[in-house]
Amino acid sequence: MTTRTDCEALDTVDPLAEIRDRFALPDGEIYLDGNSLGALPKHVPERMRKVVEEQWGVDRIRSWNVHRWTDLPHRVGDRIGALVGAQPGSIIAADTTSINAFKAIDAARRLRPDRRVILTDTSNFPTDVYVMRGIADAAGLELRIVEPDSVLEAIDDSIAVVAVTEVDYRTGSRHDMAAITAACHEAGAIVVWDLAHSAGAFPVALADLGVDFAVGCGYKYLNGGPGAPAFIYVAPRHQIAFRNPITGWFGHAAPFDFSLEFVPAEGIARARVGTPHVLGLVALDAALDVFDGLDLDVVRAKSLAMTDLFMDLVEGWVDELDVATPREPERRGSQVSLRHEHAFPIVQALIARDVVGDFRTPDIARFGFAPLYLRHVDVWDAAVAVREVIDSGEWQEPKYAVRPRVT
Amino acid sequence: MTTRTDCEALDTVDPLAEIRDRFALPDGEIYLDGNSLGALPKHVPERMRKVVEEQWGVDRIRSWNVHRWTDLPHRVGDRIGALVGAQPGSIIAADTTSINAFKAIDAARRLRPDRRVILTDTSNFPTDVYVMRGIADAAGLELRIVEPDSVLEAIDDSIAVVAVTEVDYRTGSRHDMAAITAACHEAGAIVVWDLAHSAGAFPVALADLGVDFAVGCGYKYLNGGPGAPAFIYVAPRHQIAFRNPITGWFGHAAPFDFSLEFVPAEGIARARVGTPHVLGLVALDAALDVFDGLDLDVVRAKSLAMTDLFMDLVEGWVDELDVATPREPERRGSQVSLRHEHAFPIVQALIARDVVGDFRTPDIARFGFAPLYLRHVDVWDAAVAVREVIDSGEWQEPKYAVRPRVT
Repeated sequence: MTTRTDCEALDTVDPLAEIRDRFALPDGEIYLDGNSLGALPKHVPERMRKVVEEQWGVDRIRSWNVHRWTDLPHRVGDRIGALVGAQPGSIIAADTTSINAFKAIDAARRLRPDRRVILTDTSNFPTDVYVMRGIADAAGLELRIVEPDSVLEAIDDSIAVVAVTEVDYRTGSRHDMAAITAACHEAGAIVVWDLAHSAGAFPVALADLGVDFAVGCGYKYLNGGPGAPAFIYVAPRHQIAFRNPITGWFGHAAPFDFSLEFVPAEGIARARVGTPHVLGLVALDAALDVFDGLDLDVVRAKSLAMTDLFMDLVEGWVDELDVATPREPERRGSQVSLRHEHAFPIVQALIARDVVGDFRTPDIARFGFAPLYLRHVDVWDAAVAVREVIDSGEWQEPKYAVRPRVT
Repeated sequence: MTTRTDCEALDTVDPLAEIRDRFALPDGEIYLDGNSLGALPKHVPERMRKVVEEQWGVDRIRSWNVHRWTDLPHRVGDRIGALVGAQPGSIIAADTTSINAFKAIDAARRLRPDRRVILTDTSNFPTDVYVMRGIADAAGLELRIVEPDSVLEAIDDSIAVVAVTEVDYRTGSRHDMAAITAACHEAGAIVVWDLAHSAGAFPVALADLGVDFAVGCGYKYLNGGPGAPAFIYVAPRHQIAFRNPITGWFGHAAPFDFSLEFVPAEGIARARVGTPHVLGLVALDAALDVFDGLDLDVVRAKSLAMTDLFMDLVEGWVDELDVATPREPERRGSQVSLRHEHAFPIVQALIARDVVGDFRTPDIARFGFAPLYLRHVDVWDAAVAVREVIDSGEWQEPKYAVRPRVT
């Protein structure tokens, strides 16, 4: 059985130990919510100061050229591309995941005008499902929602688009991207992957797997800051046919010609819409520095070791909580979810002990293991906290049952 | 004839003089591009430091509740609402102007399903026209583009939506919002106003005029920073029927219930889509502090005095440039545009003299007069610079003819 001393030993030889030093980590808190809002890389504040005080404050309008603000979506997009196996020129960072899902899924269904079904599963993040519902209703298509385990068998030649999230935000269960992508192409369907809980957590191989479209989030494992710009991937082979439903000036071939005729840009620029959110993009760009030179296989190995350890400890110590996350390494993301009827007050009691996870309705206590800044001892201490909160029954104190408006 | 001493005297009694001190203004530069990117209010960097280092860095995920990040679009929206005559609860700050135009115009045309024409004019900013083109093509509607002076007569009962920008980004010419709005309602059409060059520059009376929808920009006269979140206004009477074409989780009645069924939020929250861009919203929120307690009639009076003065001086001194901006106060915004075949190198030569305006194709030299931080002596000195650049012929030096990729 592993001991805390074993964990300390693992941290000593952790090839990512020095990466942890690049993050601002308040003393005493074990932050297991990097899958919701990634921690702050230490160098980001100075980069933000520069963009605000020097670029906005002094260079002002000239910064669009001098500091290449205009290109930010592409430069940041290519850096994300390097983390998800996308070719340069196939990703931009822009807007929100929801808006990018709207662009990608609407464009995808237009590539299969003779088909009437958009397919997703019940584990998909709700915003993706809402976006699909809006597209399906507007276009007179059927939105078919199946159980996650039934996605593969539900793919047939009636399906225009399959849009799913790789890692289930609730359970941490991971879809087989290779198999689903291959099945889509076999059936002539277009696949749109949401990488919200994938990008930055483990290697993704968009180009190698022949994925059609993808979207993802900048503020989770990419640590881009609250409400960071999201990203959208359009496979190069689809870029000519890609029809962005929101035709804004930055998606124009020549925005600064100010022509009244819309001529879509070539390449991934076609996925752009309005003026880039410079402040958010600069924070995300700076945050991505942390990944420079990093081997995502090493990141993944540490993530699996940590989630394995947490599941082992909790399963060994606590009978009251069920592990909702698959034990097979290839079937999980970088989080562990525990089920309990009273998951909400349990999470609150853990937060009171400075072990910060989150609650997802109806019964999920969710713990994200961001491999870049967590240690094995954090995993140990978090599991101890779970055991003590359960054994003591302290989660039953009324104060922990108060639900804030947003969790 | 006015003298520079007169200008100094005007600045001495300027009721907005102390507002200028709230901005970071690099020495020696006359910044006449606040209509493109507003100057930096001095207190913004510290607010950004706090949101990055303390809220993101320390409070992290808890900030959604503790610092009310979730509400930011509403809180900032209501502050903008106070500047454009909108009721509380009728504006959110979110996304980009282009995306908000997409939401507003698509929702507007759905309110008139029996009509087939969307009307705009050639002075509209291209992104609005592109968005309309996309909506019209997708919905099988006609996009009718008339000359700005013909908008009123073009409004009849065939028109579903009239979408126009109040102030022409090129000439600074201002539409009659009251007349066009009234004509739309007389004809049973829905009106969508773009307030990009209005909000923060002069009073707007959205509610009093009965405007249906409006959108606008956060980074011009509102000084919200590069790529600041934009805003969208939905008149309270339309909020129940308002159908946001992009159905994301923050537009849901209960986003954190994570239901798979989309139930639109009540009120203006229905115009939201994805996770709010917190960093950009905090910068914009901070920037709006400058307007606290300000009388926009005073702002407008100073703006008219400055634009009048600039036109008087240039017309008196320089024959080679034609004033493209209307002289009637009610017909112009807060900018002056000068036409010249070689406007591009002229603007570049002025920038070399630290008089920063911008060029708009094909022949417009554009000078924005942001009343909050410009002085009458700046207007004088800028006009002198225009005269000297023309008289010296220095704009003909080859180096000024080099067009950067973006101006």
